[in-house]
Amino acid sequence: MNEGSATTSAVILLADGFEEMEAVILADTLRRGKWRVALAGVTGMSLTGSRGVRVLAEVPWRGTNHEEFDVMILPGGREGTTRLASEESVLEALRERASANKWIAAVCAAPLVLKAAGVLNGRRFTSHPSVKDEISLPGWENRRVVADGHLVTSQGPGTCFELALELLRLLNGRAAAEDAARGLILPSTLAGG
Amino acid sequence: MNEGSATTSAVILLADGFEEMEAVILADTLRRGKWRVALAGVTGMSLTGSRGVRVLAEVPWRGTNHEEFDVMILPGGREGTTRLASEESVLEALRERASANKWIAAVCAAPLVLKAAGVLNGRRFTSHPSVKDEISLPGWENRRVVADGHLVTSQGPGTCFELALELLRLLNGRAAAEDAARGLILPSTLAGG
Repeated sequence: MNEGSATTSAVILLADGFEEMEAVILADTLRRGKWRVALAGVTGMSLTGSRGVRVLAEVPWRGTNHEEFDVMILPGGREGTTRLASEESVLEALRERASANKWIAAVCAAPLVLKAAGVLNGRRFTSHPSVKDEISLPGWENRRVVADGHLVTSQGPGTCFELALELLRLLNGRAAAEDAARGLILPSTLAGG
Repeated sequence: MNEGSATTSAVILLADGFEEMEAVILADTLRRGKWRVALAGVTGMSLTGSRGVRVLAEVPWRGTNHEEFDVMILPGGREGTTRLASEESVLEALRERASANKWIAAVCAAPLVLKAAGVLNGRRFTSHPSVKDEISLPGWENRRVVADGHLVTSQGPGTCFELALELLRLLNGRAAAEDAARGLILPSTLAGG
């Protein structure tokens, strides 16, 4: 836990076809939680989401050192995750982080990228239910957010507030998550962080 | 209700300082519901959200005829809504729509823009609780989403899935809202649309 220490940081990887709600909910909520967040463009600097929303990346993935970030986050979006999984530098970063026990988070279809990197074996995780069979590993759990050590996964756009708050809770403590949740007007079942 | 008829459409107004989660959740969820959605840039075509996420508009607000859209949607974000409220063409469009009983939706701080346009008098509505006192009108209700005739308002980022699904339900029927909700993995309390 980084409570009281330097700013926590995350890099969110964007490839064309990324799920735009997932990326934006995570970036915005983590910034409300005072994290330093970088949106890293993998397939370019102007990215088009799965439903056509265009977002400008803030840094190019090439040239970004993932080790400078506490958490590496992969949003979903089927085409975006296919592109991430075909990028060797992304798979290599995931392997390095898994070996070094550094935080990784993935949503929706993005656990397919973790599978492509070979970092899901022996882990508990979740994904969008529609890609469960394709992942086909015994550690899959049907819960909205699953944290197993430094690997945190969630199921879809509607789980991203909870994923962001879980990351805040895990890295900065419950009070930090509650602070970030204030003002969001979440459903009462989620508002506790 | 447009059930079975032509595609329903919405224009979402973006001004620098807009709440990026609100705009993107609404655009994405309504597009999942098969709406034609245009992100209209009011202060430019490259907009920076309240937490720094940069989104590219799809059409300029100047030159866009709001009457061509079934719904005009204002996301929140304090600075963004201040900019919208200072734009006479936005206020004039709101007055025209209110007179003609055309749909308007506003989230979070954006009901301040409705107040500036003079279209909230005698209406039931909500807003982010933090701007309730500033709006200071008797119709304010402490509910997550409030629909009063063709005016639909909601309280913050965490209510935007519900707002989008309520718009789908009101304009296209319950089945359309349920179709769009499928795949979002919303909390069970919201998943019914």
